[in-house]
Amino acid sequence: MQIEGRNQVRQAIEGGLTINKILVDTNFSNRKDEIVFLARKKRIRVDFVPKQALDRKSTTSHHQGYIAETVDFKYTPLDQLLAVKSEKPFFVLLDGIEDPHNFGAIIRSCECAGVDGIIIPKNRACVVNDTVVRTSTGAISNMKIAMVTNLKEAITSLKNMGVWVYAAETGGENIYSKNLNQPIAVVIGSEGKGVKKSIIEMCDGVLTLPLKGKVNSLNASVACGIVIFEILRQRG
Amino acid sequence: MQIEGRNQVRQAIEGGLTINKILVDTNFSNRKDEIVFLARKKRIRVDFVPKQALDRKSTTSHHQGYIAETVDFKYTPLDQLLAVKSEKPFFVLLDGIEDPHNFGAIIRSCECAGVDGIIIPKNRACVVNDTVVRTSTGAISNMKIAMVTNLKEAITSLKNMGVWVYAAETGGENIYSKNLNQPIAVVIGSEGKGVKKSIIEMCDGVLTLPLKGKVNSLNASVACGIVIFEILRQRG
Repeated sequence: MQIEGRNQVRQAIEGGLTINKILVDTNFSNRKDEIVFLARKKRIRVDFVPKQALDRKSTTSHHQGYIAETVDFKYTPLDQLLAVKSEKPFFVLLDGIEDPHNFGAIIRSCECAGVDGIIIPKNRACVVNDTVVRTSTGAISNMKIAMVTNLKEAITSLKNMGVWVYAAETGGENIYSKNLNQPIAVVIGSEGKGVKKSIIEMCDGVLTLPLKGKVNSLNASVACGIVIFEILRQRG
Repeated sequence: MQIEGRNQVRQAIEGGLTINKILVDTNFSNRKDEIVFLARKKRIRVDFVPKQALDRKSTTSHHQGYIAETVDFKYTPLDQLLAVKSEKPFFVLLDGIEDPHNFGAIIRSCECAGVDGIIIPKNRACVVNDTVVRTSTGAISNMKIAMVTNLKEAITSLKNMGVWVYAAETGGENIYSKNLNQPIAVVIGSEGKGVKKSIIEMCDGVLTLPLKGKVNSLNASVACGIVIFEILRQRG
């Protein structure tokens, strides 16, 4: 995978992403360059190349003189992801998030909230790609993600280990009147369709944000952020 | 402005956006079409045009046979926006949000949280454009937005009317230990730089989300969502 753009490459270095090398516009080789400095400090290889070479390699046309070549993302096997030592583990399951920007923002939020791992389905969902890595602004390097064939089997595994599994969806219990200070997993639905009915039926309950508007539909990554921070708040 | 795509156009109609007319692929004229049905119910003009005409008109190349022509967005003058009848008014100020997807998602969250109005600066910030309208999924038609030359003057006006103004930023008071059940305005910073120092100095305080990760940086629209829903929660 590759990451492009000044801020994005800096965040990838600072976030500790495994980077094979960084290609930098050769015109920057004579100046004190912050990113080159950062990369060298972390012993990442820096190659100066002509701007035309970056233009050819770029897939976003916003490289701004910087392209980082990263190691492909390594998913964590589900059993390893579930084997956390925390007393009150905290997982997030994504039931078909399709937009890479939403997926990246969710990874950021999960990292900030201290979530132990994210579980995504193999099919009909966004996988970790360049855009996800870029949007996660480095958070992805601190987050375990498992990709499973069947989300329902993962839910069964979670329940077997004593984790309460809740769907974040409309029409359920007010999230603020619910005790969430327990081993917990939250299922976030896809942008258009929400959490699948067959998944909701497997859950221990449905958590609903009380909304006051007329349109009443939050962006998926925003909804996820509000739900996981309410869990964090209750845990103190 | 124009809105493209099946879901986007449907949300625009349902959200009550002022639509001049909807252009629909002429191939859809012989079938029972949900969007045409909805539009006619709301007495919106529907023109069937060849697919090629839609292709030419499209700016996103994802029109899916539907383009809605909407009235340009009408900003609300600041004094009108501030003249809410609510006992405990609730405003959101955006200090330089640049990404239209973030702006659109913030409008959605504000609508869902019952925010009375959003105040944005005229310069160096995203204005209401096609992408914002589309990303807001109809919420924009229920949200008053004021565009001001000077955010600081708006803050002075808010303080003069007895509204507490807080910046959402790192390094302040834990948001969960703060009483937010009062007339309130929250300033959300830009994606890269956060809230400007000169703005923070004018505020009554800084609200900080306690974060647990290493990267510790939330997406701007996610951070905004978490903050305004914490205010909503405290207000019961």
